[in-house]
Amino acid sequence: MQHPVRVVSGMRPTGALHLGHFHGVLQSWLRLQGEHDCYFFVADWHALTDQVQPVAETAIYDMVVDWLAAGIDPQRTTLFIQSRMPEHAELFTLLAMHTPLSWLERVPGFKEVAERHPSFGRLGYPLLQAADILAYKATHVPVGQDQSAHLELCREVARRLNQVVGAALFPEPAAVFSPTPRLSGLDGRKMSKSAGNAIGMREAPQEVRKKVVRMPTDPRRVHRGDVGEPERCPVWALHQVSTPSAEFAPLASGCRSAAIGCVDCKQVLLDHLLPQQAEWRARAVQHMAEPKQVHWLVEVGTERARVMARKTLRDVREGLGLKV
Amino acid sequence: MQHPVRVVSGMRPTGALHLGHFHGVLQSWLRLQGEHDCYFFVADWHALTDQVQPVAETAIYDMVVDWLAAGIDPQRTTLFIQSRMPEHAELFTLLAMHTPLSWLERVPGFKEVAERHPSFGRLGYPLLQAADILAYKATHVPVGQDQSAHLELCREVARRLNQVVGAALFPEPAAVFSPTPRLSGLDGRKMSKSAGNAIGMREAPQEVRKKVVRMPTDPRRVHRGDVGEPERCPVWALHQVSTPSAEFAPLASGCRSAAIGCVDCKQVLLDHLLPQQAEWRARAVQHMAEPKQVHWLVEVGTERARVMARKTLRDVREGLGLKV
Repeated sequence: MQHPVRVVSGMRPTGALHLGHFHGVLQSWLRLQGEHDCYFFVADWHALTDQVQPVAETAIYDMVVDWLAAGIDPQRTTLFIQSRMPEHAELFTLLAMHTPLSWLERVPGFKEVAERHPSFGRLGYPLLQAADILAYKATHVPVGQDQSAHLELCREVARRLNQVVGAALFPEPAAVFSPTPRLSGLDGRKMSKSAGNAIGMREAPQEVRKKVVRMPTDPRRVHRGDVGEPERCPVWALHQVSTPSAEFAPLASGCRSAAIGCVDCKQVLLDHLLPQQAEWRARAVQHMAEPKQVHWLVEVGTERARVMARKTLRDVREGLGLKV
Repeated sequence: MQHPVRVVSGMRPTGALHLGHFHGVLQSWLRLQGEHDCYFFVADWHALTDQVQPVAETAIYDMVVDWLAAGIDPQRTTLFIQSRMPEHAELFTLLAMHTPLSWLERVPGFKEVAERHPSFGRLGYPLLQAADILAYKATHVPVGQDQSAHLELCREVARRLNQVVGAALFPEPAAVFSPTPRLSGLDGRKMSKSAGNAIGMREAPQEVRKKVVRMPTDPRRVHRGDVGEPERCPVWALHQVSTPSAEFAPLASGCRSAAIGCVDCKQVLLDHLLPQQAEWRARAVQHMAEPKQVHWLVEVGTERARVMARKTLRDVREGLGLKV
């Protein structure tokens, strides 16, 4: 049985997104939505696995606005909220019956967590992800490098269930790797909100300019006349994602020969970054002016996703001999 | 906050029930349904925790017919099927996030199972039970002695959730112990279908007579004239549940003095057992003549249960800050 190509991916509701999210995830989503049937969701249940605080509703909608700002098109793509889909929980429960405990205990990363007294839900978190994916019979899943073990578990679980029900109920979803799984931030370490080294997707231009101007560069380039090495410079990492690649060669040789200074180099970055952010902000402003419309887009997506998930669950129940 | 008295209990779909089920569980249910708002359900998801075979639909309805035959009254009590309630799975998933893994690992009985490569669902089985119970904000739960650790976990989970949401969302359900948690079978060991020592609730009278006549008695009573000791006799255990207690004294003294023989004693048992079974069979025949009616009773019960479970889930979602 040939399964139609379908992409499923989720993001935890972290509020407004930064450039790391855009280049690490949203760029992949944009490419995929142009080619395939895509389901993108707010993973608010997953947010509960390691935070006790309730998820603020603004964190959900600020993030969805950033999806829309980036160009995610709700006409062609299904956007929904995980916690509105009891079907995921039902599938998680049914998969749990057929997933050996040892498979979850050996997922990389769990051993480290195990020392911090994790919840039962934390152990089952890769299985809940599998349910999120399999509820739509996804064939492709965009993943960061650190998530590929989770997808491997999902594939194992899909195979096991197909065995149990004696039919190719689920495809084994393939990984789609992001070209920029890890963007470095203002200080060269991985960009993240908590590290305080992020540039928000919709951050005000004067703030972005201030942040970029203050960015450290190659530490050996103390004076304007010192030559530098782009590979040692955090600004260079941002050029990689924001600046057209035709400009890389002159920038790199200018740095290595001290023909251009760091101030010039940063200005080139801003010349490309600020217009892109202006575009995102313009789209976001439109959506924020109509919050009901954004809620409605998500409602429509949630109901569209439900039709698909319900169909899958009927197949699963039938396969397991449960009342359909 | 005072929670209204509500009883929740489930039984795995094992097909037609035997006297052990009747006296161990259904007797409690009958007493409780006369006094309280009761929810009794077919635990077909639980059946998946340790069997790979699909649950046959006949196993569900044969059991429900036995509930009705015993006198469970669907007018006053809500009967439903667990697998029709995604709300239980959703609550299970949410509780999982707040239940330390260690709580489940230390539930008595799990260590023994752990050596047999259990599923993740098997580890979580007491938590799924907690979800079954808490979905209705049950205040009372009939349990066998071996289930009291599970109920203790349920109480702990209820306390934890109340803490997390900062409100007395769930009562801590109290155990209602069965007066006959363990009925012995034809051979004196615990009555069970798999041990082949059971008398079915609706078994044909000639079969029951044959089984009782062949039952071993006190092994020291070889000849009619030998005196016996009721406490060593499996027939005596069945008298305890089937024969009016006023007859215990003459039977016991007759056995101890050899004034009555085992054949006489067994006849007394049959004189009480067969009419009770005839009554169950008569009710069962009526229900089996109208299978659609039985399905409909369960449908109505399932929808009634759903109203309650949905209400609870709304409270839980709201408490956890999820979209209601």
